[in-house]
Amino acid sequence: METTRRELLKGMTGMALGAVATSALAGLVGCAPKEAMAAQGTATPTAAPAFPWPYQKVDPIAAAERAYAAYSQGGCMFGAFEGILGELRDKVGGPYLTFPSAMMKYGAAGVVGWGTLCGALNGAAALLYLVLDAKAATALINEVFAWYGSEELPNYKPKAPKFDTIKTSVANSPLCHVSVTTWSVKSGFKTGSPERAERCAWLTASVAKYAVELLNQQADSAFKAAHEVPQDVKACLSCHGKGGEVENVHATSATSCTVCHTDIKPNHPSK
Amino acid sequence: METTRRELLKGMTGMALGAVATSALAGLVGCAPKEAMAAQGTATPTAAPAFPWPYQKVDPIAAAERAYAAYSQGGCMFGAFEGILGELRDKVGGPYLTFPSAMMKYGAAGVVGWGTLCGALNGAAALLYLVLDAKAATALINEVFAWYGSEELPNYKPKAPKFDTIKTSVANSPLCHVSVTTWSVKSGFKTGSPERAERCAWLTASVAKYAVELLNQQADSAFKAAHEVPQDVKACLSCHGKGGEVENVHATSATSCTVCHTDIKPNHPSK
Repeated sequence: METTRRELLKGMTGMALGAVATSALAGLVGCAPKEAMAAQGTATPTAAPAFPWPYQKVDPIAAAERAYAAYSQGGCMFGAFEGILGELRDKVGGPYLTFPSAMMKYGAAGVVGWGTLCGALNGAAALLYLVLDAKAATALINEVFAWYGSEELPNYKPKAPKFDTIKTSVANSPLCHVSVTTWSVKSGFKTGSPERAERCAWLTASVAKYAVELLNQQADSAFKAAHEVPQDVKACLSCHGKGGEVENVHATSATSCTVCHTDIKPNHPSK
Repeated sequence: METTRRELLKGMTGMALGAVATSALAGLVGCAPKEAMAAQGTATPTAAPAFPWPYQKVDPIAAAERAYAAYSQGGCMFGAFEGILGELRDKVGGPYLTFPSAMMKYGAAGVVGWGTLCGALNGAAALLYLVLDAKAATALINEVFAWYGSEELPNYKPKAPKFDTIKTSVANSPLCHVSVTTWSVKSGFKTGSPERAERCAWLTASVAKYAVELLNQQADSAFKAAHEVPQDVKACLSCHGKGGEVENVHATSATSCTVCHTDIKPNHPSK
């Protein structure tokens, strides 16, 4: 089945790229470069495979560099998503030529500035669910989120950075506001500074790189989670999560509960 | 330009639907129903328009009902996104026939159970950015988020609900964990209960309905934001936001700061 789909896709890539060059389509979208047209979903494949879309191993460094460049065009979610999808567009072609990556710009700064979910995580999660079955996608998303919350990041320096060094921090949360403020306090840079934007660009590249590394492990049937839900979070969820005595939290995973719940008393839970 | 794109799309719809029925594609995806195939992005348009994709007014109630049904197939993000995109697939056709909506299942319960951004909001935001230019999409997403955080929800009862009544609550946040726990505490139902799942299904329908109402207003050049960033949040951001004295928050919008920052002292800021 996999071989059949790959063979089909290889054939489709050429057809789709040929179709991109048609004068009718060029008239529709103006004289945009071929890659930009593809990024906007203006290519014209003649068939598309079933969901999820097929993954072929790509270079994590290439995805990171593409993510870094895309960050400056559309923010963190677009950066992480397009960093990986762009590599698949070039390597696999087929359906990836039609995907409107630009829609992912909505996730910037925790969705148009609301500071909710880190856009790099939002974009990586969307991409992972596009190319994996539900079980594998969930496992890899869990790993990316747990890694993001517990590691010193960013851990990837782009080849042509705007600053030579960027301080790292441990986010302790998948949320944009928590992640950025934690970094700002540690680094001493304002959240509106060029250094903060560069930190988020490196972080976007770091997330894209890690997601691709995991995807490549999964493609080799070699993926194994390296970051788990911390013991203190498990202890909280044993009471507040599904089946617990005080079942009032609809979540199965977190990096930390106390990063927000700062008022938990030492004798909690008091009977 | 708009007329030209619409005319093109009308022509494309027929071609795409015809292509779906080809025996070659049927062999690729098995004997799936036509609508299910389209939902998985297996249709075969022969051209796709530029980004953003064209919006035509659809029925908010139809989108809400479709969102409610989709919730039970793939959760809150898929529900809100597919609720609206499914209507566009039926009415506009063209590129919407190819979009792999199933990827949006990643956003369930704040992304695979992490309790971050409410999936209904994540799905609505993704859809809005797909069909509007950046400025309009940002304005409508801001309105949906602000409405979600400040209104008694859910405010839409599906035509064939699993429960006759569902209590409402004001989320005070766009975050899944805060929204669900607030409802759980108010209603007295556990977060793992069928009543909570039904509440989230109604909420998904409510978000899809409101997003479509706003889209239809925008299509009539009649959109005007009805919910703004609260004054107390503006006061916080005047110091902590962009250009403020203590610039350590990378956000421009929020429903409430004190819903998480419960330890702000009455004399804050103390000089």
